[in-house]
Amino acid sequence: MLIFACLILLFFIFMHVNGKHYLTVWMENGVVNMIDQNKLPFSFEVMQCTSWRETAEAIRNMNVRGAGAIGAAAGFAMAQAFIQATGSEKEKYLYEAKKSIEATRPTARDLFYATQKVFEAGSTKKAIKTAQQLAAENQNEGKLIGEAGQKLIGDDMGILTHCNAGWLAFVDYGSALAPMYEAKRQGKNFHVFVNETRPRSQGARLTAWELGNERITHHIIADNAAAYFMQQQKIDIVIVGTDRVAANGDIANKIGTLEKAVLAKAFGIPFYVAAPLSTFDLNCKTGHDIPIEFRDHSEVLYMSGLNPGGQIEKIRVAAPGSTALNPAFDITPAKYITGFITSHGIFESSAEAIAGLFW
Amino acid sequence: MLIFACLILLFFIFMHVNGKHYLTVWMENGVVNMIDQNKLPFSFEVMQCTSWRETAEAIRNMNVRGAGAIGAAAGFAMAQAFIQATGSEKEKYLYEAKKSIEATRPTARDLFYATQKVFEAGSTKKAIKTAQQLAAENQNEGKLIGEAGQKLIGDDMGILTHCNAGWLAFVDYGSALAPMYEAKRQGKNFHVFVNETRPRSQGARLTAWELGNERITHHIIADNAAAYFMQQQKIDIVIVGTDRVAANGDIANKIGTLEKAVLAKAFGIPFYVAAPLSTFDLNCKTGHDIPIEFRDHSEVLYMSGLNPGGQIEKIRVAAPGSTALNPAFDITPAKYITGFITSHGIFESSAEAIAGLFW
Repeated sequence: MLIFACLILLFFIFMHVNGKHYLTVWMENGVVNMIDQNKLPFSFEVMQCTSWRETAEAIRNMNVRGAGAIGAAAGFAMAQAFIQATGSEKEKYLYEAKKSIEATRPTARDLFYATQKVFEAGSTKKAIKTAQQLAAENQNEGKLIGEAGQKLIGDDMGILTHCNAGWLAFVDYGSALAPMYEAKRQGKNFHVFVNETRPRSQGARLTAWELGNERITHHIIADNAAAYFMQQQKIDIVIVGTDRVAANGDIANKIGTLEKAVLAKAFGIPFYVAAPLSTFDLNCKTGHDIPIEFRDHSEVLYMSGLNPGGQIEKIRVAAPGSTALNPAFDITPAKYITGFITSHGIFESSAEAIAGLFW
Repeated sequence: MLIFACLILLFFIFMHVNGKHYLTVWMENGVVNMIDQNKLPFSFEVMQCTSWRETAEAIRNMNVRGAGAIGAAAGFAMAQAFIQATGSEKEKYLYEAKKSIEATRPTARDLFYATQKVFEAGSTKKAIKTAQQLAAENQNEGKLIGEAGQKLIGDDMGILTHCNAGWLAFVDYGSALAPMYEAKRQGKNFHVFVNETRPRSQGARLTAWELGNERITHHIIADNAAAYFMQQQKIDIVIVGTDRVAANGDIANKIGTLEKAVLAKAFGIPFYVAAPLSTFDLNCKTGHDIPIEFRDHSEVLYMSGLNPGGQIEKIRVAAPGSTALNPAFDITPAKYITGFITSHGIFESSAEAIAGLFW
């Protein structure tokens, strides 16, 4: 709860959100509210989606992003579909809504987990209850991941993280960043290297914003610089999140995770993956079975940010006429992963350990 | 600002080099001319530096960049110092000019090689001649590197390159890109994956621009995506340039090179380094002896590019309040390098092979 108190205080001082603690995404009276992550870190705005189609579009457009937050938003969207469904075609309407919501982002396991659970609820009342429960579970899992993972963090450590698997990627707390928040609360001092995480710069924009608000010492680095700091022995541990874990321990996560995992192994640095149970997909035998989303190449060719006039502007950062390829995720084989940090504790990356988790 | 004293000539035909063949940097009547690489790829401008201080400032400011082009520009700057030096304090003036020119960029071997050679020339006439010879040698070496390296490129290959080691990084031809240009002239078809190369995006801006002008099929990728395409077996060879080669075969090159080399080894892909002889520094025993330049962190926190109004604008792309660490180069140990592509042919990365080159 101290984290909450800090956030409230810091928001009031720096982020101007009326001194209030926010969840990343929540549903009230059938309306899905979410922090608009396309506006962060330059502007803090909450957007409201009054229909499942609006919520689905917000997932596709990445106003809400990160495995856990996508899952919660998808569950809420499915509940909104129940609210909107009327007449004799109700079942067909719900089925089509489910397919549409699932088509927004193909990689994150939590999305499919949430739509399925809410779809199976059967009634509007139960659907809303299930969606709220899923969001609450997600919040609770983050808390437990933090408590389990803080044991890995010692004083004066250098920690590398990729993309954003903080509270903005979940309903609250986060996965990869949760252990850091808990370690900080316990008074440990450490330093975080934040991979910028091109093309969408979730590291430079969101993780740095979260860490800054938590007053955790950090530096942003170009994605290219991780190996340099590993070679210089400045990095003692790598902690990342994941969008889906296969039964054999392979994971899908933000593009560049594979690079950092291979580098960590080459330099003898432990590489941990933090994940809620909803991210484990036993139906995926290996990483080969996880679909990889390719996103529009404009994400590589253009960047948006704050211009000197204080406006968010999009500029072209690549040669005119050239095109780009933009895989949004990659698969990191289990052999590069030292262990998983979960609400059930830390365990090694193996089919046996994962199977044991769900027994 | 000295840089503003440099005269700028505008060429209005966008993305064409005016139907004319340009060198990257050249000296005429004591004036150093260079393609302004801070304006590329959005605007093609040639800037003129009329004094050694202006030329040195252009090196520091990266209006001219890339190992070979820095070397040629530094040689020309040293020759300009000879032209400017007068009176009894001439020797002291030249010595101080040499130190100032060498302080602009610490990593590139070619810079020190050129200032030393021109400094030793003794007279103004000989200094100018030596500087012109060094530039001509650099041009010729690029041509020979291209001829040697094209043998490595087969039809339908996927090639990964990092940063810009093309003709913009040399007086002409380039190092890493020279084999591709020669292979293209021979009618070979291949595909180039261009690492964006954050933080300064020389890949997305300069390499893509060069390849586009040479009509070579290419895609820009986020630096994070290289391992994904390696894992997918889309990349058959990696070719990069270098700023300095140590006697044992370790190299310094643009930040991120080490990452790509480690990845190439992990995925069993040959990793080649193209370099003119002036880049080999036998006084450096290993990579540990090569100084690594740290540049201002604003290069990571801000990006510049073309706004919708067609103007070059700088925007902040990171969380306000956060800072960054910005090493500009890294050291790739010889064990990750399959071989060197030089004007004397291709040879393995070993102390013996390098020593043999200079016998």
